[in-house]
Amino acid sequence: MIVLVTDFGLGDEYVGVMKGVICSINPEVKIIDLTHGISSQDIIWAGIVVYKTCKFFPQGSIFLIVVDPGVGTERDIIIMKAGGYYFIAPDNGVLSLIYEKFNPEIIVKAEKKNYTLQPVSCTFHGRDIFSPLAAHLSRGENVLQMGDKVDRIVRIKFPQPQIREKEIIAAVIHIDRFGNLITSLDREEFEKLGWRRFKIEYKGRTIDEISSCYDTGKDLIAIWESKNFLEIAKPGGCAQEYLQAKPGDEIRIVKLG
Amino acid sequence: MIVLVTDFGLGDEYVGVMKGVICSINPEVKIIDLTHGISSQDIIWAGIVVYKTCKFFPQGSIFLIVVDPGVGTERDIIIMKAGGYYFIAPDNGVLSLIYEKFNPEIIVKAEKKNYTLQPVSCTFHGRDIFSPLAAHLSRGENVLQMGDKVDRIVRIKFPQPQIREKEIIAAVIHIDRFGNLITSLDREEFEKLGWRRFKIEYKGRTIDEISSCYDTGKDLIAIWESKNFLEIAKPGGCAQEYLQAKPGDEIRIVKLG
Amino acid sequence: MIVLVTDFGLGDEYVGVMKGVICSINPEVKIIDLTHGISSQDIIWAGIVVYKTCKFFPQGSIFLIVVDPGVGTERDIIIMKAGGYYFIAPDNGVLSLIYEKFNPEIIVKAEKKNYTLQPVSCTFHGRDIFSPLAAHLSRGENVLQMGDKVDRIVRIKFPQPQIREKEIIAAVIHIDRFGNLITSLDREEFEKLGWRRFKIEYKGRTIDEISSCYDTGKDLIAIWESKNFLEIAKPGGCAQEYLQAKPGDEIRIVKLG
Repeated sequence: MIVLVTDFGLGDEYVGVMKGVICSINPEVKIIDLTHGISSQDIIWAGIVVYKTCKFFPQGSIFLIVVDPGVGTERDIIIMKAGGYYFIAPDNGVLSLIYEKFNPEIIVKAEKKNYTLQPVSCTFHGRDIFSPLAAHLSRGENVLQMGDKVDRIVRIKFPQPQIREKEIIAAVIHIDRFGNLITSLDREEFEKLGWRRFKIEYKGRTIDEISSCYDTGKDLIAIWESKNFLEIAKPGGCAQEYLQAKPGDEIRIVKLG
Repeated sequence: MIVLVTDFGLGDEYVGVMKGVICSINPEVKIIDLTHGISSQDIIWAGIVVYKTCKFFPQGSIFLIVVDPGVGTERDIIIMKAGGYYFIAPDNGVLSLIYEKFNPEIIVKAEKKNYTLQPVSCTFHGRDIFSPLAAHLSRGENVLQMGDKVDRIVRIKFPQPQIREKEIIAAVIHIDRFGNLITSLDREEFEKLGWRRFKIEYKGRTIDEISSCYDTGKDLIAIWESKNFLEIAKPGGCAQEYLQAKPGDEIRIVKLG
Repeated sequence: MIVLVTDFGLGDEYVGVMKGVICSINPEVKIIDLTHGISSQDIIWAGIVVYKTCKFFPQGSIFLIVVDPGVGTERDIIIMKAGGYYFIAPDNGVLSLIYEKFNPEIIVKAEKKNYTLQPVSCTFHGRDIFSPLAAHLSRGENVLQMGDKVDRIVRIKFPQPQIREKEIIAAVIHIDRFGNLITSLDREEFEKLGWRRFKIEYKGRTIDEISSCYDTGKDLIAIWESKNFLEIAKPGGCAQEYLQAKPGDEIRIVKLG
């Protein structure tokens, strides 16, 4: 199975053409769209989404991630085997989280010329290089045959909340279609702190607890969203509009008592 | 075949993750997106779309409807066999039309714990509960094994035009991407009345007949749209912009002679 | 394989219903969405996209093109075998480029009545006529059995740059999700001219060369995009916003020396 993640949107033909290329090489393979709604060139969010959701896909799935501001330049293309999955992506840092958390078994720098379409354009490597690589891998090609082994990849910093003794400063990192505000505070990280009493402050408002459902009796809630980030939501409404929120907004969690 | 209907949109990864869960349980099943463009939490329109279009899918198809304002609360989840199809949805009224029109063979309240992912989040039952239920059903699980039989479901009112002796008051219930205005007046219901001469009034304009094509010689037409609702359209243009229309607008059909 | 191209968007259920109809007739066939983001009734761009991208799909693929301002009128429906592919579309000119460039082997005017759903609506031939035709063809129906042979189709003019001795006048014909401006100048056509030195003028700006990558050191570039049209782009940014560009804008290429 090939799982696609791009910032191409669905308004143009780009994703459809990639599927045509894949099916030309491997007509049998199943293709799933994880999302094509990554904001243009947002390798941070693409990396987070893949890291947080890959476990919901069958082992052996091939994640093809084409969020590639460097298309047409000499940046490398990485094929990584990690956590029972394969990841194919430009070597621009989008795989940093996977690299750090999953302890990769194999990393190769793809040797493009045996697999790419001819000629290779300089504007659409998703079609000419990435899709053929994924399709050949899905046909059973040995990843070690597909390029030279490497130990390192380009790594970038992902948003981390600042955790102090009595205060956490996190940020809004994504706003979904319901207007829910997804922040950089991860549940596991927070629960390790063992804080019993705390309050959450955002835009002059205070939330006293973390809810376990979208309780419509409340004006504004905090809740662990589906990827286990802290989310600010307005039950039955749109927190983004209500609070005039935007990505980058700061949110404070303060320890009490 | 599993047919998905949600209000998740395609900008986020939610639909993709549901497909990952389904394929992890049943790698062979075909998945079709009926639509993910239902307006946020609009169970009325979701119910109408499924009721009006399910007949175009193969018998035995499983419709998985995740429009679920009550996610994380104690609302039940229903599996209904009706009209040769299966429907899985929150028990929030979205299945009312199917229930009323199709004379269900079997209704069960899903016993979640044998099928759900662990742990179950409180924000994404589409992934943790609904998708596994659909996937197991698609693998041939007996619906009677999947929960306790029930006789009733939550029912809600769907928009009904007011039909009087010489007048019908209907409403705009949906506006599609072409700007066509879909109203609550159903063709079958209207034709039963046997009105020979009538006029249609909307926003100070009068339409004298129901057209049988998008006749570009006309400024504004009424036509039976693909789900057999009366539609107001501007041939070659956008009725929504032209008339500043919005859902809820009232439309009058007046009997003449 | 059936490849869908429509102007239906993905906000409504129209595309999903077409897939239901196709799978009801041929449950085994693979369906790929090339794009549903064609602007409403834009047969020009639909024709260009199909002509330029069909080669990336497996031979034998059936392209089903439903961009159909004349739905419900007496316009014909064409099935064309050309270039190793099948194309099904309204006879409204959308296939002109395929017709001119691919030297069709077979063209038939579809005899609808053996294949269509009953009853046929006047608003959704994509569901009632086009999808059944594609599905039956994908099951191996002989195209010559599906209608009467014809020699001609409706043809329309596609945007052509004006090429003079020392000047080319082209136009912006499409703007993609990244805000890149795709123009009507085709690479092959331009390279035949053999111009060594030239400049590109657009909105008072001058670009001196055609780049081979999105060089972020530059303010504005010209580049051959993935369908081999000349594209104006702002590396790392959005040319559309930056230049207040819109489809139809004129662009000049001037020969130097």
